[in-house]
Amino acid sequence: MKAARYYGTEDIRVDDIPEPDVRPGTVKIAPAWTGICGGDLHLYFDGPVSPMPTAGNPHPLSGEEVPLVFGHEFSGVVEEIGDGVEGLAPGDSVVVEPLLVCGECFACREGRYNLCAKLGFIGMSGGGGGLSEHIVVEKRFVHPVGDMPLDQAALIEPLSVSAHGVRLSGAREGDVALIGGAGPIGLFTAAVLKAQGATVIVSEMSRQRKQKAMDSGVADHVLDPKEDDVVARTLEITGGKGADVAFECAGVQPVFDTLLGALKPGGTLQVLALYGKAPTLDMMSVLRKEVRIQGTMAYAGDHPGAIRMVREGRIDLAPFITRKIAVEDLAKEGMRRLVDHKDEEVKILVHM
Amino acid sequence: MKAARYYGTEDIRVDDIPEPDVRPGTVKIAPAWTGICGGDLHLYFDGPVSPMPTAGNPHPLSGEEVPLVFGHEFSGVVEEIGDGVEGLAPGDSVVVEPLLVCGECFACREGRYNLCAKLGFIGMSGGGGGLSEHIVVEKRFVHPVGDMPLDQAALIEPLSVSAHGVRLSGAREGDVALIGGAGPIGLFTAAVLKAQGATVIVSEMSRQRKQKAMDSGVADHVLDPKEDDVVARTLEITGGKGADVAFECAGVQPVFDTLLGALKPGGTLQVLALYGKAPTLDMMSVLRKEVRIQGTMAYAGDHPGAIRMVREGRIDLAPFITRKIAVEDLAKEGMRRLVDHKDEEVKILVHM
Repeated sequence: MKAARYYGTEDIRVDDIPEPDVRPGTVKIAPAWTGICGGDLHLYFDGPVSPMPTAGNPHPLSGEEVPLVFGHEFSGVVEEIGDGVEGLAPGDSVVVEPLLVCGECFACREGRYNLCAKLGFIGMSGGGGGLSEHIVVEKRFVHPVGDMPLDQAALIEPLSVSAHGVRLSGAREGDVALIGGAGPIGLFTAAVLKAQGATVIVSEMSRQRKQKAMDSGVADHVLDPKEDDVVARTLEITGGKGADVAFECAGVQPVFDTLLGALKPGGTLQVLALYGKAPTLDMMSVLRKEVRIQGTMAYAGDHPGAIRMVREGRIDLAPFITRKIAVEDLAKEGMRRLVDHKDEEVKILVHM
Repeated sequence: MKAARYYGTEDIRVDDIPEPDVRPGTVKIAPAWTGICGGDLHLYFDGPVSPMPTAGNPHPLSGEEVPLVFGHEFSGVVEEIGDGVEGLAPGDSVVVEPLLVCGECFACREGRYNLCAKLGFIGMSGGGGGLSEHIVVEKRFVHPVGDMPLDQAALIEPLSVSAHGVRLSGAREGDVALIGGAGPIGLFTAAVLKAQGATVIVSEMSRQRKQKAMDSGVADHVLDPKEDDVVARTLEITGGKGADVAFECAGVQPVFDTLLGALKPGGTLQVLALYGKAPTLDMMSVLRKEVRIQGTMAYAGDHPGAIRMVREGRIDLAPFITRKIAVEDLAKEGMRRLVDHKDEEVKILVHM
């Protein structure tokens, strides 16, 4: 079968590789659409970093090393089910929670398998990926999406990252949420919060991203730190109280500081962004306001809830698909475009 | 009456000032013993910083400015009760929760009055202090201590800081808690955790402080980062899991990093220490382990619980009183000694 495999920096090749066989407890899926995320870009342009195993260092769970089938944000159609699999049938539209977990460590035993000591990702760490004609996945990580269009379904993975972050934050209906950064994860986080009845303030500098936050209907207020005093405006919107929850979706010091400043006493700052440079922590603010800063890692059991919000019409994913390309155009129309035109694109979907 | 008043850097004078009168809803107390804390030292040697008002800038709640009666960690005996005060009588031993709060802001209305927008401290921001012959305090901030010795009762205030931090951390019976730093707050935090059934690991470099942590019985394990790999030892003690909760009681980057490294996935790092220099945050660890970092500010309703733990014999405060002095010796035998011999002293108590 055809599969796009990652070899190293700026080197993904469409290879012919053996088709995987369904096994007991697994599901064979024909991937439909695969999204590209920031982590993919990082691997593509900067070379492998954990959880992508480097040459000669196979991933402890998959036993695989480069070249590896690429793509972890994907939808598909069930082709075949293994012995013992119930609740799924050939022809079902599904998405994959693309995790490799050990099932044995402390975190796995507590159900927080996203914190598995050996955590890997399908599409990065072995076990196949979305950019292939077929993939075989453990049943527990396959989630049916009903009649959701398969292109939108490919966005369930990043939406689940946001759903997980929102769940960890403890945000409740009626809360005021401040989101720093309206890239894909910022937008999806806004969408989840809005679907759950929060008042959503988005802070973003890029003209196109601000426009997307407004046009997609996920934000009640869109602020621009170049023009607005985000802390003062948040206090104004909240009657002097400050935001109940804040979501760091930018990964830069000024955004971190602004969110900290705009939080209410006792508020929670949920970090979803990766940081190129470690931020410094204004500890006096953390102490004086008894702020809670929390990290977020992927998802654990969040896909069904994310799927439900979309199927119930509380989240419209259509505005976030900005381009669809063939796998042959992955380098130029996918990877490169997401760097050169990052503010115009949200999700670019790839088809085999 | 006599009162020790703070004038500025290294300038506290015993003055003769008017005796306060009891008012409805208040309690008149004769202070017995007053402890000196790190914050006091900072004010004494470095000059006034918030919540100590500077000259010409009276505190918004007390309306007072320097000179101000000093001392916020104190016990005393009720002398007189104001109209409408119930549950207290002259002769009762009490401690004071030394807060000035507005009662009107968002935090006050939610019961988190320690996060009051105008928060002040008795003994720093006006409203009298422990280092005086008499003080009048609102009934709500006066807590009876029963037959607890008055010298030990003066330690209820810092113990309540620790009780508050432990409460915020969500630490539960059977948890493994790692404490960074065995200064007074580290020791009190260990004492609270031990009283609540946690396994307590203390990390400390000073020989005298390590000895105190061991001799006082508050630590199950005392590690020395000069000799022990604290992360590895914590993993060993917890069977590879990591500490459930960690308490930053040192206020320095290496301790912060060690605690972050030693936490279990999903663990909580509770910060009780003030930082001279803002720490940098290893965000990848925060994300990968979904760590929660929380700040702590004073206390709010924690005094009764702290008093109960001592009265039930679950905490012995006696080992933490290392010296008792007269107010005339405050500068030399109190302030200076706590700097020059900081590792030998835990709490120095001052008597008028």
